[in-house]
Amino acid sequence: MKIETHIAHFTQPLYLESGRILEPYQIAYETYGELNNDASNVILICHALSGSHHATGLYEGDKKEGWWDELIGDHKAIDTTKHFVVSTNVIGSCFGSTGPMSNNYPSNTPYRLKFPVLTIKDMIKAQKQLLSQLGIHHLKAIIGGSMGGMQALQFAVDYPNFSDQIIALATTYATQPWTIAFNKVAMEAIRHDVRFKNGHYEKDAFKEEGLMGLAIGRIAGHISYLSPDSMSKKFGRNYVNNDGLFELFGRYEVERYMEYNTSNFSKLFDPLSYLYIIKAINTFNLSRGYDSLHEAILRIKAKTTLISFTGDYLFFPKEMEHIHIMMQRNHQNSSYYEIESDYGHDAFLVEIDKFSNIIKESLEKKG
Amino acid sequence: MKIETHIAHFTQPLYLESGRILEPYQIAYETYGELNNDASNVILICHALSGSHHATGLYEGDKKEGWWDELIGDHKAIDTTKHFVVSTNVIGSCFGSTGPMSNNYPSNTPYRLKFPVLTIKDMIKAQKQLLSQLGIHHLKAIIGGSMGGMQALQFAVDYPNFSDQIIALATTYATQPWTIAFNKVAMEAIRHDVRFKNGHYEKDAFKEEGLMGLAIGRIAGHISYLSPDSMSKKFGRNYVNNDGLFELFGRYEVERYMEYNTSNFSKLFDPLSYLYIIKAINTFNLSRGYDSLHEAILRIKAKTTLISFTGDYLFFPKEMEHIHIMMQRNHQNSSYYEIESDYGHDAFLVEIDKFSNIIKESLEKKG
Repeated sequence: MKIETHIAHFTQPLYLESGRILEPYQIAYETYGELNNDASNVILICHALSGSHHATGLYEGDKKEGWWDELIGDHKAIDTTKHFVVSTNVIGSCFGSTGPMSNNYPSNTPYRLKFPVLTIKDMIKAQKQLLSQLGIHHLKAIIGGSMGGMQALQFAVDYPNFSDQIIALATTYATQPWTIAFNKVAMEAIRHDVRFKNGHYEKDAFKEEGLMGLAIGRIAGHISYLSPDSMSKKFGRNYVNNDGLFELFGRYEVERYMEYNTSNFSKLFDPLSYLYIIKAINTFNLSRGYDSLHEAILRIKAKTTLISFTGDYLFFPKEMEHIHIMMQRNHQNSSYYEIESDYGHDAFLVEIDKFSNIIKESLEKKG
Repeated sequence: MKIETHIAHFTQPLYLESGRILEPYQIAYETYGELNNDASNVILICHALSGSHHATGLYEGDKKEGWWDELIGDHKAIDTTKHFVVSTNVIGSCFGSTGPMSNNYPSNTPYRLKFPVLTIKDMIKAQKQLLSQLGIHHLKAIIGGSMGGMQALQFAVDYPNFSDQIIALATTYATQPWTIAFNKVAMEAIRHDVRFKNGHYEKDAFKEEGLMGLAIGRIAGHISYLSPDSMSKKFGRNYVNNDGLFELFGRYEVERYMEYNTSNFSKLFDPLSYLYIIKAINTFNLSRGYDSLHEAILRIKAKTTLISFTGDYLFFPKEMEHIHIMMQRNHQNSSYYEIESDYGHDAFLVEIDKFSNIIKESLEKKG
């Protein structure tokens, strides 16, 4: 599989949903496989909150493959011997695309809290600019889970003729208050951490010691990514070996897991980017800008595959089923799959074997 | 209804499950109604994490009635014209009973983090001492929800002949990792708030400006007390009127609710008490000290009424049903009710009309 990593620069303005302008901006992206002559074999992959453009393969010296490595590659479900796969880092994120810690041109200082609030609409608009720069004016498919699924759906609504099909996993038509409440924990914990300094921290401030506020917010996140059953199976009531049951800060295994995962994360992810991306997730609503959800969904022309997971406690299956029911009523081309899984929301990243065939078949089928 | 508020003092040691000793200690409690001649009309009420002994009635100058005011009173389901109701503040709490901010006798300084870790077993042992001091050696019923339900169940297991019946709502036989994970948010947010000062804050430090760490932990708590459906019904995707959709810290209504409720709470509740009580909830496991859950439950002689709520996302109905199934298998006297409610865990405090008849009838029936 041929992997390339690039950064594309844009000097024309990006007109945002808020009325503000992002100018200039850049997008980090990876491509897998090779573009065919008539640019008709392109699949766009969209990542979730904490993801990046690095969706598959192993960087030199890295320990962990990209987040959908099991799904994307030569002779895998998203087959890079046939397709040219493009995966971008969303604007607002912190892995190479323009975000709140990028310099606020023409100054040499970061935007910080002066960065404009972005929406899912803005993210896909930027991705469309990138594709255009690459000479790609039509897609075979757009595929993503969670916030990536939001992007796929928004693409299908905003640019109905742009992609033959979309595949959205573990997502929704509009973010519900339950999910906004989980994000609220992160928002408050980050804001009120004294080391956050109202956004005026140094660029490398959290490399050694992560921002505790982000780690705390991420604990709430992890609760929503797992499920009660998956936690019971994975941890039970096991207590950490050398911790005392009657020590106030002695820990159950589930607590150690939360500490370990979130403390690492808080060293790697920029807290301002985290705030801006959860804001984009909160404000996601397919119907904004249209008269109703019905009108928005009616615009979709792409073949639409919707995959939910029974144990998803962040975006519940019924939310995706709702889209399918509306599309069926309109005689639009949609398929809905509810995958049995007690893994929770993270199933779209973990239980690949349970849905990779659906994706493979959908990409191989015509129409 | 006759209401009395007291504080009882104990100079004999309370031997704790941890092996440590609490000495001296005190218990704040309220009584409703009147004790009959042979002390045979006593019902004990047990409160949840954030509750207090003030279960019903209105204090002079207060705006809000006790937390089960709809349930307890003259001619209500828990009828104070017939029963003498005792409601205590659990040890470890901050409403008058001995807790981490009490003085560590004989010094004049608070225990703070030197306070011993308490368990549900310890809480009920202390309550039993209080009842004994009041000349009450047998109960008609023990009733509680959430952590209060844990106490009722633990009473029935540890002191099988002490109460004719118990009624436990919205609780479990052992706290599961899902719930421990929610508590983990509070534990970390409190510990790492700089104003917490590793427990060395001044007694009135948070009266004016609550501890943000506690407020943040409480946001996670509120998520678990509500349910996705109740949040959708209550808040939908409504945005706060004068907040901008494209302001980073502009808020959805659900966010304002979380802010408002938790900020008030963080002025009223002692953060050390919060840490100690969630620890007691985390370590709750009916089977500890017995060979198995089966053996523990087999000890129960009290008529046992178990009430769960379909929308409870903190203690799922199947956890209470599990107790019922075990008791049925043992031919023990148990009844299980699963109340239809999308209100979430808080249903036991809010949807009184949906279960008050069950309690009323159970208290009126013999055997």
